Amino acid sequence: MPTSSEPLAPWRSPLARALHRNRSLLYSRYLQLATVTPDGLPACRTVVFRGFREGTNQLQVITDRRSQKIQHIAHQPKAEVCWYFPKTREQFRLAGHLLVVDKDNCDPNLQAARSHLWQTISDAARSQFASPPPDQPWEPNQPVIPASPDTLMPLDTFCLVLLLPDRVDHLELRGNPQTRHHYTYDPHNGWAALAINP
Amino acid sequence: MPTSSEPLAPWRSPLARALHRNRSLLYSRYLQLATVTPDGLPACRTVVFRGFREGTNQLQVITDRRSQKIQHIAHQPKAEVCWYFPKTREQFRLAGHLLVVDKDNCDPNLQAARSHLWQTISDAARSQFASPPPDQPWEPNQPVIPASPDTLMPLDTFCLVLLLPDRVDHLELRGNPQTRHHYTYDPHNGWAALAINP
Repeated sequence: MPTSSEPLAPWRSPLARALHRNRSLLYSRYLQLATVTPDGLPACRTVVFRGFREGTNQLQVITDRRSQKIQHIAHQPKAEVCWYFPKTREQFRLAGHLLVVDKDNCDPNLQAARSHLWQTISDAARSQFASPPPDQPWEPNQPVIPASPDTLMPLDTFCLVLLLPDRVDHLELRGNPQTRHHYTYDPHNGWAALAINP
Repeated sequence: MPTSSEPLAPWRSPLARALHRNRSLLYSRYLQLATVTPDGLPACRTVVFRGFREGTNQLQVITDRRSQKIQHIAHQPKAEVCWYFPKTREQFRLAGHLLVVDKDNCDPNLQAARSHLWQTISDAARSQFASPPPDQPWEPNQPVIPASPDTLMPLDTFCLVLLLPDRVDHLELRGNPQTRHHYTYDPHNGWAALAINP
């Protein structure tokens, strides 16, 4: 598993290019996170890319501790994200280990990353972490959501989730023939790249 | 599991509205299909929605028999698709059973649906089913792809995949508060809808 002073992975450059070329579309930072439920069934939802953790190849997303994906990750920490870029017609699939950084995590660097993200999100996004529990039946008279929770200290429900990729698949649909590259990480040799059939 | 003369499910109307309102974006017909590998790991890739099978609530996608998802489905036929509509900022998650209709399927109605889809896709899309096996290392001197395979008879590699949803989650991010509806199918009582917390 890559450490926190890791060199830039070879897929970072094509991914940075895709992010740049699709930057006019706000939703080009939305990707789909697939997990496995405790029953062994697939689950998939849209999440927002919150940048890489500084000095690493770890993708950051945020989630509510009460959301179902937290239970999925506790059962099976392996995940795959699928990231489609509409403008450049390319897809990245990144598979790896998920690490949930909640309020009880003792690593000061990870807590700093969690606090930093809390400070960068909007008031509306922060408010969601104080709202009634997700996935529960909606009731008409629920507690009022505080307009703006503390901007410095994350609420207990706020979690940072890190994806530590060990396999990346990059498919480019433009061009004839289409091209596809596969990157795999090995703890001894680092990242290796291979062109495969699309 | 819904039969082939089933009534329109209650989530069809909001989904049809989303498709209509996002129709200017070609890629609003792209969705992410999550499956589970034989090792119990999540997998996720973008697929293209090819309409509903006539008279049913079954979503149609197509795939190559040689693609990895075919092995996943053989092992675990349950799947979840995640469908995000950028213009209206809403997400549908549809979970259910996948049915692969390959050349050996004996149901004449399903074979008719498979043939019909083959005839409606582009020459370029058809050619892909004659190309070197996906996921294999790319080699510079591979067999030449026929410019246009038979437009009437599907190639053996061409599969129709049907998703028979039994659980649908509809999240609308616009509006304050956001709204979320959950639809579940029961063979005895049909579909039921419930408003839940976003």
